[in-house]
Amino acid sequence: MPGPEPPVMAEQIGATGKSTGKSAEKSAEKARPLGLADDDFEQRRPLRGQITKREVRAVSLYSLGLCQDSIVWDIGAGTGSVSVEAALIAHRGRVFAVEKDLENIGLLERNVERLGTDNIEIVAAEAPAALDSLPDPDSVFIGGSGGNLPAILELVGRRLKPGGRVVANLAALERSHEVYHQLQQLGFKTELVMVNAARGKELKDGTVRLESLNPVFVVSGVRPGDPQGVAGE
Amino acid sequence: MPGPEPPVMAEQIGATGKSTGKSAEKSAEKARPLGLADDDFEQRRPLRGQITKREVRAVSLYSLGLCQDSIVWDIGAGTGSVSVEAALIAHRGRVFAVEKDLENIGLLERNVERLGTDNIEIVAAEAPAALDSLPDPDSVFIGGSGGNLPAILELVGRRLKPGGRVVANLAALERSHEVYHQLQQLGFKTELVMVNAARGKELKDGTVRLESLNPVFVVSGVRPGDPQGVAGE
Amino acid sequence: MPGPEPPVMAEQIGATGKSTGKSAEKSAEKARPLGLADDDFEQRRPLRGQITKREVRAVSLYSLGLCQDSIVWDIGAGTGSVSVEAALIAHRGRVFAVEKDLENIGLLERNVERLGTDNIEIVAAEAPAALDSLPDPDSVFIGGSGGNLPAILELVGRRLKPGGRVVANLAALERSHEVYHQLQQLGFKTELVMVNAARGKELKDGTVRLESLNPVFVVSGVRPGDPQGVAGE
Amino acid sequence: MPGPEPPVMAEQIGATGKSTGKSAEKSAEKARPLGLADDDFEQRRPLRGQITKREVRAVSLYSLGLCQDSIVWDIGAGTGSVSVEAALIAHRGRVFAVEKDLENIGLLERNVERLGTDNIEIVAAEAPAALDSLPDPDSVFIGGSGGNLPAILELVGRRLKPGGRVVANLAALERSHEVYHQLQQLGFKTELVMVNAARGKELKDGTVRLESLNPVFVVSGVRPGDPQGVAGE
Repeated sequence: MPGPEPPVMAEQIGATGKSTGKSAEKSAEKARPLGLADDDFEQRRPLRGQITKREVRAVSLYSLGLCQDSIVWDIGAGTGSVSVEAALIAHRGRVFAVEKDLENIGLLERNVERLGTDNIEIVAAEAPAALDSLPDPDSVFIGGSGGNLPAILELVGRRLKPGGRVVANLAALERSHEVYHQLQQLGFKTELVMVNAARGKELKDGTVRLESLNPVFVVSGVRPGDPQGVAGE
Repeated sequence: MPGPEPPVMAEQIGATGKSTGKSAEKSAEKARPLGLADDDFEQRRPLRGQITKREVRAVSLYSLGLCQDSIVWDIGAGTGSVSVEAALIAHRGRVFAVEKDLENIGLLERNVERLGTDNIEIVAAEAPAALDSLPDPDSVFIGGSGGNLPAILELVGRRLKPGGRVVANLAALERSHEVYHQLQQLGFKTELVMVNAARGKELKDGTVRLESLNPVFVVSGVRPGDPQGVAGE
Repeated sequence: MPGPEPPVMAEQIGATGKSTGKSAEKSAEKARPLGLADDDFEQRRPLRGQITKREVRAVSLYSLGLCQDSIVWDIGAGTGSVSVEAALIAHRGRVFAVEKDLENIGLLERNVERLGTDNIEIVAAEAPAALDSLPDPDSVFIGGSGGNLPAILELVGRRLKPGGRVVANLAALERSHEVYHQLQQLGFKTELVMVNAARGKELKDGTVRLESLNPVFVVSGVRPGDPQGVAGE
Repeated sequence: MPGPEPPVMAEQIGATGKSTGKSAEKSAEKARPLGLADDDFEQRRPLRGQITKREVRAVSLYSLGLCQDSIVWDIGAGTGSVSVEAALIAHRGRVFAVEKDLENIGLLERNVERLGTDNIEIVAAEAPAALDSLPDPDSVFIGGSGGNLPAILELVGRRLKPGGRVVANLAALERSHEVYHQLQQLGFKTELVMVNAARGKELKDGTVRLESLNPVFVVSGVRPGDPQGVAGE
């Protein structure tokens, strides 16, 4: 299902001739463990804090239903924190980090280059148009709502493989249930989780108090169907 | 560092001659995606509800710092929900599911057999004694406090590889900061997170309300040192 | 602003001739302290659990902006937990406990009789019609959404005194922001708070774990205007 | 039980001859409704944020078991946010706002003068010594831990009237269960609640996201005994 207007591939990380399947695999294996801290990523300033927080990233990644050979779309990739982790789990698959904000694409590139593996491709274009030229996904992560969320979900509803999963992170109450209900209307098995974590901070006397992160709604849907039967799509 | 009293290996899943590296890898890859639901696991009755909840499992797994070839100890493995997922990420490594409760070992075996991969070994014995015969771990998960927590942590403090991580799930306030401070005293870089998720439930009119899970404290520590220098790996 | 159809006054508690202002005041003062536990109230069975939980009741009462002489409407009074507490603070005012569910009106009556003061009147009828015959309120509490929420809020928008406050408790995401936005459209200064409390429970070893209540959205609005200028008070 | 060293009464608000019982009552009634916002109080700078947050204040006040004639100790009164609200409910009683930090006593005085009623007295001295000259309390609020918490609780254990209540707000995990267990050892019926509220903030598009307050532990204890039988103490 090729799109009419191929998006700009800003950079295909690792596509320098030296990265074949084997070495990519090896680099993924050796590079680093899964589970980066928020501070491991270069972040936008002064918008620092826009990154998907570690605890929310954990729940979102886990909800993506990743396999070793998954095709993953990370829509609104931002700092790339989800892409680089998803690519570590889907180490034989491919991750497409889609980001429309060309001003910050350098930040995404640097994070992917420094922390990512060879199976990540940055797509510097706007969804949903940017998605037309990508292979059908097994897993789709949507990091923010932007303005095109309904159109993106509609396209995901057509392109996601049977048994595949879509996960969206949302801050606004209104968007959370809109996405929830749209996924239901697409026939997906739909779930919503509010993640409301707090991190320990030491006080001067060595005792630990809790500092809350803001609640994030993680809305996810599973497309009905047997993943084994994917072939014919 | 072999222990003086080898624990009972209740079952070494997949150790039936047919599971070599290649096929184990393949089975891990094809078996299923990462991210099981709580209901995917057979659970104890009437103690259903004791399983590490999905959202907490996600944060705990992510905090374990898993690599593809990690050696993992899952102490107090219970239903095996952490073991089977860790084994999927550490698909070239080995996961030891340590469980002392012999009455429920059958449940653990059935979950591992049905949902797990060939790189999981069940160790039906009590920690810390049970840990003596196991290889030094890269990652240690502690699912519950039992009575031996200080002794287990002390042993983990000696055996965990440089750069390795330990993650404990705790319900009690007292245990949470006890573990936090013991990990600090062991020289670990220590963090505490309270995970406080709520799941959406549909009301009769189709609207979504939130149903809280109980807060769980996820306390984790990183042993100082360079993982690269660990050994000949 | 008398309503065309006076609602049934199921019982006017204390309207037995012996309760004048002075003694009502005295009974309020001596009867009991503010701050009842959930178990102090007789609750519906098997629907036990529908009561406004203590922590949410505290935030809701505090948000009502009660004065000693406030006129209060408690719409969807249920077990009466908000009415009996509001009446203690507004001990020179009047509280109208409006409840349409005639099957459970006996429960409301018994709780008001046992725990309430003489300044509470039970109105056994459905809002908004039931509200027409009541005096204009300083504070309005809405305990549940029922089906008439938009109409009730519209009426509250007309009847609430300048400087008065309305507080609604909502479980559903959809209702929470609907009420929020309707209050804004009515010109109210509007706030939303999610209350997400957890209660300590002792484990067998004396340590304390946390048991979550479900999150409740407390949406409140203040009608612009100077309370002093309201009337000849 | 007079103390050996009477604390400095920095200011006895309203003790200017014009404030007798009747007028105090009247001023309480007319002054303002219960339920101030955090921003209504003058706060320390740059330590703004140290005030007991509105939602936590609501739960704490509600847990104090206030009557119209209660004697209240507010230990570590800070900005006075709990004192001025407690004094509105206990409008025939007396509230003692105890604060040792003489540098910030001016702030407390200004808040009490502007927002408080005539039944509040500021005690500019350190607890527990400062408490010796005060009348036995019906309700005690402890806003922070300071260094003297165990000694303060011990004194409260002796001085609190039968049926009286003590409520402490704590940020640190360690302090929370220390206070919990000390109150138990004093023979009090003890409860712990973690209040974990989040406030709605409007995004540019008018949708509402949630901004968390940090969790606070509200630990409370009720002294056994019948409040009616107080006399003999």
